[in-house]
Parts: sequence; C-alpha cells; structure tokens
Amino acid sequence: MATRLAAVASVAPEERKGDLQAQVAARELAEAYHSYGVAGKAWFLATLASEYGTSGSRVYDAITGWRSATVSGTGPREDRYFKAERALRESLVPGYDRLFALLRQQPGGMKFVVDLRRDVRSLLRAPPEKAGGLVAATRADLAALDKYMHSVLSSWFAVGALDLASITWDTPASTLEKIMDYERVHRMDGWEDLKQRLGPGRRCYAFFHPAMPDEPLIFVEVALLRSMASSIQDVLSEVPTLADEEASSTAIFYSISATQAGLAQIELGNFLIKRVVNALLAESSSPAYFATLSPIPGFSSWLASSHAAGELEAMLPPLGAVALATLDETLEAAPRSLGDALMAHLASPDWHKSPAIADALQATLLPLCARYLTSVRPPRAGEPAASALDPVANFHLRNGARVERINWLGDSSPRGLRQSAGLMVNYRYSLRYIDENNYRYANEGAITVSPAIADILSTVTSSPL
Amino acid sequence: MATRLAAVASVAPEERKGDLQAQVAARELAEAYHSYGVAGKAWFLATLASEYGTSGSRVYDAITGWRSATVSGTGPREDRYFKAERALRESLVPGYDRLFALLRQQPGGMKFVVDLRRDVRSLLRAPPEKAGGLVAATRADLAALDKYMHSVLSSWFAVGALDLASITWDTPASTLEKIMDYERVHRMDGWEDLKQRLGPGRRCYAFFHPAMPDEPLIFVEVALLRSMASSIQDVLSEVPTLADEEASSTAIFYSISATQAGLAQIELGNFLIKRVVNALLAESSSPAYFATLSPIPGFSSWLASSHAAGELEAMLPPLGAVALATLDETLEAAPRSLGDALMAHLASPDWHKSPAIADALQATLLPLCARYLTSVRPPRAGEPAASALDPVANFHLRNGARVERINWLGDSSPRGLRQSAGLMVNYRYSLRYIDENNYRYANEGAITVSPAIADILSTVTSSPL
Repeated sequence: MATRLAAVASVAPEERKGDLQAQVAARELAEAYHSYGVAGKAWFLATLASEYGTSGSRVYDAITGWRSATVSGTGPREDRYFKAERALRESLVPGYDRLFALLRQQPGGMKFVVDLRRDVRSLLRAPPEKAGGLVAATRADLAALDKYMHSVLSSWFAVGALDLASITWDTPASTLEKIMDYERVHRMDGWEDLKQRLGPGRRCYAFFHPAMPDEPLIFVEVALLRSMASSIQDVLSEVPTLADEEASSTAIFYSISATQAGLAQIELGNFLIKRVVNALLAESSSPAYFATLSPIPGFSSWLASSHAAGELEAMLPPLGAVALATLDETLEAAPRSLGDALMAHLASPDWHKSPAIADALQATLLPLCARYLTSVRPPRAGEPAASALDPVANFHLRNGARVERINWLGDSSPRGLRQSAGLMVNYRYSLRYIDENNYRYANEGAITVSPAIADILSTVTSSPL
Repeated sequence: MATRLAAVASVAPEERKGDLQAQVAARELAEAYHSYGVAGKAWFLATLASEYGTSGSRVYDAITGWRSATVSGTGPREDRYFKAERALRESLVPGYDRLFALLRQQPGGMKFVVDLRRDVRSLLRAPPEKAGGLVAATRADLAALDKYMHSVLSSWFAVGALDLASITWDTPASTLEKIMDYERVHRMDGWEDLKQRLGPGRRCYAFFHPAMPDEPLIFVEVALLRSMASSIQDVLSEVPTLADEEASSTAIFYSISATQAGLAQIELGNFLIKRVVNALLAESSSPAYFATLSPIPGFSSWLASSHAAGELEAMLPPLGAVALATLDETLEAAPRSLGDALMAHLASPDWHKSPAIADALQATLLPLCARYLTSVRPPRAGEPAASALDPVANFHLRNGARVERINWLGDSSPRGLRQSAGLMVNYRYSLRYIDENNYRYANEGAITVSPAIADILSTVTSSPL
C-alpha cells in the first residue's frame, strides 16, 4: 500500500502525462482500500494526510525564489516573476492532489474520492478511542485534507458539470432504490410509496455527474397542487389523479435531499430549483406558481437557547402572552415565567391535540417563528452580508426565494413536533424576482417576506414588551 | 465592460456562492466580447491579464502570515499552519480564475473560455504592430494568463470528463461539417469523401465534453484492412465494400486531429487510442491487429538542420552513400559532398518519379528516418526520461506503441514530400505490451521498435563512417 501511494503521489506534476503505471497503482490502491477494516482505513487516511501533503521546506524555497523575483521593485512584472509565482503555487499543491487527479480518470474513481472524503470526515468526528489513536497533529493534517478535498470536489462538481434528469417509474430500479434510501426528509414507506411520489401530480428531479451515472447527487420532489400546500401530511397522504394534475396551478417542492456525505459543504442545490422550475415550465400545462413546503430545522433549538439565555420572555407577542397566562393551571408545576410556561407546554406529550393549548401556542409561536426565520447571524470574515440563522431558510433565500407563509401544524410527525414545534414554512420562487431577491440577500443580507409575514412580524418586532 | 469585469473578478472566493448577479455579469461580458473587433479583443485580454491577475502585496502578506505560522519550529503542524497555507494558496489565485469558474457554469461558457485562450495565444504570437501596441510587460502578463488557462482547462478536460462517441453518417450534419473542417492531416474533398470515410470498412471516433456537446474535441479515423497499410493514398482512394470489411484483420488509425486551438498543449489523445481499440474489440468481428499510418512531421527539417550543422555526412548509411555517389551527374551544379547531393535531389521537383533517384534516396533515407524516429532530446527539468524528437512519435510512444515499419513513398502528396520526403511510419499498438512500452518509454526513455526497424538501425548506428 505504501509503495502504491509513493508511486502515485511522489511524482512531480510535469511528469503526470500518460503515466499508465501510476494509473494502475491508483486503481490498485482504491481496490486495496475497499478491503480494509476500520483501523486499516484510519491508518491509510492518516498516512495520506500527514505524509503526502505539502512540504514546508519546498514552500520555503519557493518563497525565497518569489522574493528574489520581486526584489526588483515596483516596475511591471516580467516572465521571471510569473515563473516564480507558478513555482510557489505549485509548491502548495499537496502530494495527494496527484492521487485524486489519477483516480478521477478511472471508472468509479470519482465516487471513490467522494467516499474517501466521507471517511475522512467521519474519522475527524470519531471520539479519540475509536479513531485508532489519532494524535492532535494528525487531526490537523486530516482537517487540512478534508478542506483540500472540499476544494477539489467543488471544482469537479461545479454546476456546469451536472446533468438534470427526471426520475420516473421508468427509471432503473437500482437508481430508484437509491432515491428511497437517500430520502431522509420525509422517509418513504417502500416501493408503493415511491411509486405514488413519481405518479400523477408528482415529479422528481435529480442532478447526476456524468462520471457517476448511477448516483443521484441531490434530488427534489415536487407536488402539483391546486394551491400552496400547508401540511406535509396532506401532500404525502393524498393520492392524486391525472385530473388533479390537470387542475393544478402550483408546484410545491416538498423535499430536497443531498445524498453524498463526501460532498458535504459543496453546493449542489444552488441551481437545482431554478433548473427544475424551467423544466416544469417546459411541460405542456405548466404550473403558474412555485413554492416549497420546508422544514424549519433550527426553530426548537433557537427557542430553547433563547429561553436559556433569558431572552425569550421579552420576545413573546402580546396576544400569545395573554393566551399563555390563562393556560398556567394546566401544568403540574407552576411555571416561574411565561417563557417557562411555553417551554413546559411544548415538552408535554401530544400538546397539539389539545385545542386550548394549541390555540395559545399558535398565537405565541407563529410570531416567534417569523422572527426566527428573519433573524440573521453577522457576516463571517470575507462574506459581504449577514445570513439567515436557519440553514434551510439560508438555502432558499440565497436562491432568490422569499418567506411566504408559516403553516401551523404543517408537520405533526414526532420529528416535526420536535424540531420546529410542528411548524413548516413556504418559500416562494417567483421567477420575476429571483435575481433581485438573491442580490439583495447576498449583498445586503436583506430577507424578503410576503405581506402576511410582514404583518405577523409587526406584532413582535415593534412590541413594547 | 470594465464594470462587468470588476463585478465578476474582484469578489473574494468565499463569496462565490449563489451570486446570480455575477453570473449575469459574466454572461453579458461573454456576449460583449463576441461583438468586439480585433483591437477591442486585444484591449480586453490585456486588461484581464494585467489588472485581474494576482496581487503582489496580497501574496506578500500571505507569505508573512505563513512564516509566522511556521516560526514555531519543527514540531507537528497544527491547524494554524494549515490555515496560513490555505491563505497563501488562495492569495495566488488570480482574479480571472473567478471569471472562468462563473463562465463554466453557463451554457456555452466552457467553449467561450476555450476560444478566449485561443485568442490569448494568437495575440501572443502576433507581431507587435498587429497586437495593438502591447508592451513587453503586458506580454508577460498575457503569457502568465495563457499558462494559467492551460492549467484550468487541463482540469476541465481531464480524460475522465470526456465521452467517446462513434461518428457515423447518422451523426447530425452540423457535427459532420465540423469534422470536415477540422480534418487537417488528410483533408476531405467534400461530403462524398466524408461519406466514404464513414462507410463500410471505415470508422471514426471522437471525444466530446458534456458541456460542449456540439464540438468534437479530437477525433481519429480508422480503416479496417486485410493488412497493415503502407500508403495513405491507398487508404484514401480505396472504396471498400462490406465484404472487404468482413475480410479485414487490421485496424489502421490513419488520421488524428485535435480541433480546438484553445486546448493547445492539453493532452486529449492520451487515452483516445486505447478507448478506440476497446470500442473496436467490442464489435462482432473485431480486428486482431492495431496500428497507425502516421506522418513524420519533423523529418525533413531534422535532415536540413543536421546538414546545416555538418552532421549529415557522418550519418549516411554505406549503401546509400554508394548509391548517391553514382547519381551525382544528374544534378546541374556539382555537389560538394554526399550530404549536399542528398539535399539537392530532395529539392528537385518530382524526384520520386525518377526510378534511379528514388532508388538511391530510398537506400539513404530509410535508415536516416529510422535513426530520426528513435532519436531523443534530453529530459526537460522535472521530466524523468528523454523523449522522441518527432512529436507524433512521442505521442504514440507515450501511449505504449512501438515503431513498426517505415513506408517508402507512403505519402507522395506535395505536403508529404515536403515534410518527410514522402515517408510514413506505422506505430503498432499491441494490447499485451502497451503498458510495458509506456512504462519503459516514460521512465527510461526507451523506444521499442520492431525487428525490421532494428535491422535497418544496425546499418546506421554502428556505421564506421
């Protein structure tokens, strides 16, 4: 294994041309890796990260060369300068870059690199006792490997390189099986459920890479409806007919799933929705409205941390506070504050089935959720603008959507109740405004909302409490 | 135009996500470029090269950061080190890299970048008075831009990203027209000629990139024959039938053409022949032998420069020297040496039609050509081994072929006579030896030849003259 690694990774880039031997070594290495157990894989990844990265002394020498080529002062740059610049750039290319370039040229090689990054990331997350005695220094090497692979894979999977394909009941079963496995947002209950999600009134689209034709990278499920859906249970349980499809006016994106753990933090969905909108518009009776029915994954934890920080009380909407106050007696232990009361009701089982509790919580939670969805964190270094706290909101806002409507009990599954108190949200894609919304969000951190959301927001943001 | 350039090129890479405005700016910039005249394009390219490259002061700052992160000594590297390394790497990414990344994501954008490099290269080659007053410094910037685009395009057009397609009479005419235009090795004489080259006993394969589906990038023409072809005129003039195809045993690659000037120096043919061999082997009655019928583009100029350097005389094969000596009288001016005589005969019109001259030259030129085809230049910096002087020989040897047979008057067209004294050569691809030949050539500079070529070589390399 070490010999094969040396064969592929230690050769200078100028020699990469037509080197079939290195190709063979890279292929054998990929085969050997698959046969390894957890410890063997950890050893391999640690070796790759720590011994086939960059060479500090080579970088140092290249820096010396760069400095002597720039010492002449501020005149125009000459060939000598650019040669030194290229040498410096080249010295910063880690040895493992060559392995990835070789693997990319092989059938299945691209998928192998994706899976390798998945393993690097799981090794980084593993507790020390399970990571085969990784020391802190190797951990830093592995983190650098992960980041480098991120940049390599970002380039391989750039949007121009991806094909949009419609997934239907005529798609090979091996691909359909993967769609079923990868659907984690609203799990499928076997083949009949899948068939329904590909039947009349439904659509499914996926991005594929030509070098990984059997692997859907990210896919979106669409429901064609008469109006904007407010509950995921309605979408999933409805069995639409062709007549329903013909009467539809609205396309609802109700599930988006990325499939490859090795492509974490690489934007694949970026243009997916825009491409799917265009594909739908090309159909004979195309929908007029486009929106999502989306989860709000960070809402419950934002509530909990706001409460823990003592900030929840001041954010309660006036009507909600009144409703909560009248509910106090239903709790076993008397709450010390309205915030306590809210959290205690939310923690009680089946609260949403009690009309009194549900009404009080609705008056409280809708405004709080509107506030959460339009909350931003400060821009990170190098970013031009703030971005939404909620990751799904951030995704759709960056794509040019607006916050359209918050749906009370839009997802009453245990998971939906847990992560967002049962709330769901529609983000609306209006082709006319996509570019403008995207620009304002990306550059000014401005979040566009519907008039209805603006109304709800006015009850909390200008609240005298 | 300058505003659009600023919009796409001046934003830091972390902000690249989902920035539709920059996408739009890049698209408009591409459209504007197409409307420019020669001077406008030169101005644009010079501006791109000199004002949107790297920033020396940013590199300097990153170097300072790198040095302070490594100052701690020789211990294991920590996150701090890798962060500084990434910052240094990032500082070396020129501004125009962003433009290329944005263009890649657009329909037609990849082709635009390829054509942009074509224009950069033609501007670099243009005489100063035609290059819109380019000063030397801008020329260095442009050369750096060309080299950077080379590395970007090498990654985009890596072999794994290309599709092999069979070109037939059923291929869209728009693509066939391009094949006709791009065939420069053995030009086609209209659609009938093309139809014949795609008919029975003939094959044509091309590499395509999924993002440029209408542009064959490189293609190879194949003749299925009963034996190894010795003359290109025979291959081109023959009108084979299906019966001929069924009786064939040998696939002859008689023309390989790269089509995109913007992809100069990027290896596309590397795996083409191996892929085509496998495609042919998959046919029902597949050929047993695979060889090329190739030009020897550098032979005549090698003869001339050897003669000018006074080295030709000592290389003449004994039998050839005798034959040349008896021919002297046919020249108008008496030659001062046998080398002079050889060059004078080669310069005379229609020398190949005179049996006496042709016989003498055959005895002289075949051994000289064998010597030329196995001559190498010393390895360049960073290369492991010497490589063949002749560029076509280098291409096939690197792909694992061997020098099989030199063909007297294999190409008696004016161009064939001019560039290689009418000689052609067969390189043979034997699947069993491809990997071994490739390895020995790439790592030791060893050129494999057939026994027949070895025989011819023995008459010159051990010559006492």
